Amino acid sequence: MACFLGIDIGGTKTAVSVGDQEARVLGSRRFPTSSCPNPGRVLELVARCLLELLDELEIARPEIQRAGVSCGGPLDSRRGLVLSPPNLPGWDAVPVCEILSHRLSVPVRLENDANASALAEWMFGAGQGTQHMVFLTCSTGMGAGLILDGRLYHGRRDLAGEAGHIRLTDDGPMAYGKAGCFEAWASGAGIAAQTGRQAEEIGAAALAGDPEAIAVIRHAGEMLGRGIAILCDVLNPELVVCGTMAIRLGDLLLEPARRVLAQEALDPCPVVPAALGDELGLKAALCVAMV
Amino acid sequence: MACFLGIDIGGTKTAVSVGDQEARVLGSRRFPTSSCPNPGRVLELVARCLLELLDELEIARPEIQRAGVSCGGPLDSRRGLVLSPPNLPGWDAVPVCEILSHRLSVPVRLENDANASALAEWMFGAGQGTQHMVFLTCSTGMGAGLILDGRLYHGRRDLAGEAGHIRLTDDGPMAYGKAGCFEAWASGAGIAAQTGRQAEEIGAAALAGDPEAIAVIRHAGEMLGRGIAILCDVLNPELVVCGTMAIRLGDLLLEPARRVLAQEALDPCPVVPAALGDELGLKAALCVAMV
Repeated sequence: MACFLGIDIGGTKTAVSVGDQEARVLGSRRFPTSSCPNPGRVLELVARCLLELLDELEIARPEIQRAGVSCGGPLDSRRGLVLSPPNLPGWDAVPVCEILSHRLSVPVRLENDANASALAEWMFGAGQGTQHMVFLTCSTGMGAGLILDGRLYHGRRDLAGEAGHIRLTDDGPMAYGKAGCFEAWASGAGIAAQTGRQAEEIGAAALAGDPEAIAVIRHAGEMLGRGIAILCDVLNPELVVCGTMAIRLGDLLLEPARRVLAQEALDPCPVVPAALGDELGLKAALCVAMV
Repeated sequence: MACFLGIDIGGTKTAVSVGDQEARVLGSRRFPTSSCPNPGRVLELVARCLLELLDELEIARPEIQRAGVSCGGPLDSRRGLVLSPPNLPGWDAVPVCEILSHRLSVPVRLENDANASALAEWMFGAGQGTQHMVFLTCSTGMGAGLILDGRLYHGRRDLAGEAGHIRLTDDGPMAYGKAGCFEAWASGAGIAAQTGRQAEEIGAAALAGDPEAIAVIRHAGEMLGRGIAILCDVLNPELVVCGTMAIRLGDLLLEPARRVLAQEALDPCPVVPAALGDELGLKAALCVAMV
């Protein structure tokens, strides 16, 4: 049986998994990223967890095809380097692929988390069968992963899909030192900065029917629609798949987005929540190994 | 010698040409599009001009590989249909490729003019050697042709690169029934609508040193930079190549664009005028035949 290893390195936790050719998770482990004092120790613990998992699952080394790492950007996917992501202090030009391929004796690939999630939703989730699909993280930040002509698109420096950086309005909340940008209007961090409350808390209140919270989410949804309209006008995708907040809030967030998109884009496309739910992170890393 | 046929159908004039493998124009003809009463007659005259040209040039039919048509959108490049472009009244679902391939006995391909120009600048102009390049028409309208991962990107309905439709500001001049969109701020038609004067006339005045005209062009350049910044954040290209107005006005238009781009984009790229000059239209149609 062909197997793949997935490694999802987040600011809070790191998760590793072993999966099959359909990205089904055969086993997984997780630990707090901050439990290790430096990137080298994180990667050492990643390797140890994976090797233990393989032993437990009684999977022989030759069955392992490749490993995939999903991680916050910026990074250099061709050279396998993690380049100082804001959520991973101290990870400066870390040769993640080289270190792990040496330790695990398999080829290792690296993608940022938006790209990895785009791959997973495209291969096994809401985007199956499409040729042109946009994945929007809709999480703390607002990143996009772009599937164009049936493959992941990176741009010249792995900086394609930096949707959160797009300015939607002349004025408005700040992100990246820019007023009115997409991330400041529609991401979890943006909602928190606008309201002084956690986005999760506002989301829960909105789901419980609180009118003020519903108004906040509706407005974020409208700005999500503005941002998606720009992506539609540039990329003319078949589908936009939205992550974290859209999974949790569903139509509460997406109906206002669809309404504004219909007004704003030349050729509006369907907008749906990600289908892989809680397993998206694990499957995303596995899919990086698979392509 | 392998030869190609190029057909550039514009609202004002139609130009046809015979070219070699380097898109060098061996001979060309043009006629006013309106000199024909309907699309069928335009295509008939196109075919007759091309067959005469081939006779004059003493090129035998087997040397002709393909023909390429460049035309205003919307169109369906896969099915070879021209779909009611605003600049070609009466061209409603015209099967241009079928008609011409029947008449010329060669395969015929179809692309919108922004895509065709993107191909020409990428293959033989300012974008040679790049993998990720954006061409912006900067003409009466504001369309983009996208070269991504070393090939032309179309999207699901040939509507990728509809840059002019992007809203840059909440308020501002109108195009497509939308206030503040890229085309209304930075295209020739946009400048004309904003000032009540022809864009060509303002451009000439600006080149002659008229301060008011210079201010108009500078502002259009700044908005061009705003639009390009969005394309950079989404596509992370290596290069942006700008057509008509940028060819004529050069740094008068492009310096303000580069200045704003440097402030607005996460990874700004060089912005240059198209290199093929007056031959861009003819070469664009030939390049459609060549890819």
